[in-house]
Amino acid sequence: MGLLVVGSLALDTVQCPAGERAEMLGGSAVYFSAAASYFAPVRLVGVVGEDFPWGDVEFLKARGVDVEGLETAAGKTFRWSGRYEESGDRETLLTELNVFETFRPKIPPSYRDSQMVFLANIDPALQLDVLRQVEGTRLAACDTMNFWIDSKRGQVFDVLARVQIGFLNDGEARSIVGEGNLPSAIEKIHAAGPEVVVVKKGEHGALMSDGGNLFAVPAFPVRTVVDCTGAGDSFAGGMLGYLSSRAEWTGRTFREALIYGTVMASFAVEDFGIERFTALTREEIQSRVTALVGMISLGPGSPTTAA
Amino acid sequence: MGLLVVGSLALDTVQCPAGERAEMLGGSAVYFSAAASYFAPVRLVGVVGEDFPWGDVEFLKARGVDVEGLETAAGKTFRWSGRYEESGDRETLLTELNVFETFRPKIPPSYRDSQMVFLANIDPALQLDVLRQVEGTRLAACDTMNFWIDSKRGQVFDVLARVQIGFLNDGEARSIVGEGNLPSAIEKIHAAGPEVVVVKKGEHGALMSDGGNLFAVPAFPVRTVVDCTGAGDSFAGGMLGYLSSRAEWTGRTFREALIYGTVMASFAVEDFGIERFTALTREEIQSRVTALVGMISLGPGSPTTAA
Repeated sequence: MGLLVVGSLALDTVQCPAGERAEMLGGSAVYFSAAASYFAPVRLVGVVGEDFPWGDVEFLKARGVDVEGLETAAGKTFRWSGRYEESGDRETLLTELNVFETFRPKIPPSYRDSQMVFLANIDPALQLDVLRQVEGTRLAACDTMNFWIDSKRGQVFDVLARVQIGFLNDGEARSIVGEGNLPSAIEKIHAAGPEVVVVKKGEHGALMSDGGNLFAVPAFPVRTVVDCTGAGDSFAGGMLGYLSSRAEWTGRTFREALIYGTVMASFAVEDFGIERFTALTREEIQSRVTALVGMISLGPGSPTTAA
Repeated sequence: MGLLVVGSLALDTVQCPAGERAEMLGGSAVYFSAAASYFAPVRLVGVVGEDFPWGDVEFLKARGVDVEGLETAAGKTFRWSGRYEESGDRETLLTELNVFETFRPKIPPSYRDSQMVFLANIDPALQLDVLRQVEGTRLAACDTMNFWIDSKRGQVFDVLARVQIGFLNDGEARSIVGEGNLPSAIEKIHAAGPEVVVVKKGEHGALMSDGGNLFAVPAFPVRTVVDCTGAGDSFAGGMLGYLSSRAEWTGRTFREALIYGTVMASFAVEDFGIERFTALTREEIQSRVTALVGMISLGPGSPTTAA
């Protein structure tokens, strides 16, 4: 059945306290695919320019990512550059959309039976276009960013009305509904559509709401943070990849999926770009999952009854 | 046996988005006592001036807080004033130490058998003085702040070397050991003394380390945040009060205690000063404890084994 992602492929240049890298393979669809590939077959839709170093996607192909939907357009590949401070704050230095500016996602017929689709952070008009092309999916999820919330608010809400899972970061969750209180903001986002709202809080972990219950996961404690680019997309990839691998989706499945997403984000930040994923084993993933579950477990004993 | 707290009593004036209050009863010892009183008998040591409105402590006395150690000194009571922004950021407008400037804590003989002592955020020289007066305690805990870390760093470390639990907020944990990575900072704080390190992260919850294991609790989701003054002391009061009420201290007891601390902090911020505690029932506390435990529970099912 498969997990479809539509998003960006980019050549990223980053300046981090730990060092610098120029024109690495990046973009939301790349991080998502790399993380999700540990759990489920992934199908990628995106665009690159004539200058794209195709050798860079061999890793994704080797991990079973289907790139039939990756088109080459006349012009240069999307480029992004940013600088990270010691504090973790990020400053964007350059955004060159290039071929991404006129991208119109085309879902190959072989992808149309995808059971799940992730609409990474692209123009909400394109996200809506994708949703029209994959009407048979069991579950659709979207990400967005303040740029679209500010410039195409109506269409962002049109997308939210059509997906089952909405991913937002802390600030976006507040700004999209103009509500400073996070629990209240989550309630208003539910009212806009998604049954499940996932709020990404970076080093402070993530919060998931299914409308009736909240579930909180701390960030996995990483000793050396090298490059935070793509952490959110790796998180979504781990979460949706895990969901895609499960036959039955219960409340517990979703909570487990949040754990897996958190763990995949923790690997993403440990090296530049997707480098950490090129040397990642299922045993390492499982070991962090176990440790993270331990970080939220009260431990042996009867339910808390004091007070 | 009892739980001893040594800290400040103040008359607080706050400006919050929700409104203003002038010269309310506040101070670390007051918030701590109010929260802890729901679980254990509390003994308070502090100082007030001749202008102190003694009627204000009737609430604490009614809740079983022993104020034999509360002395009156010539002069005016400590005053603090601050303004909170919508974002939650706080600006201190005024700090008038008054009688607190020459405070020398004297532990009454009747308090000397206290099984637990909380050294609230006061001069580390005074914290050390208190520790010398209560050598028989089973467990000592301390709080501090950047002002002392910057001005009396050596003595702050002398205190840490003598306590079993160190409470710090996120920024203090990093600055006290000059380490930006929180898991690494926690390790260095352990090396300075305390077996248990509790990092308070405000709206992002709290992290506890016993040196080998981390336990993370999200903040309890409060819909209306009125006044965050004293949230950290209420957190410590809930945590140590709960511990004090338990005969046996296991890893689980400490984790449960972190839950209770988080819940008591959530009540503290819902109204000005300690007003919320004056109308708080044990049923309300237990209801939030159950909800918070639910927020970190994977739910029914076998242990996570996928991937």
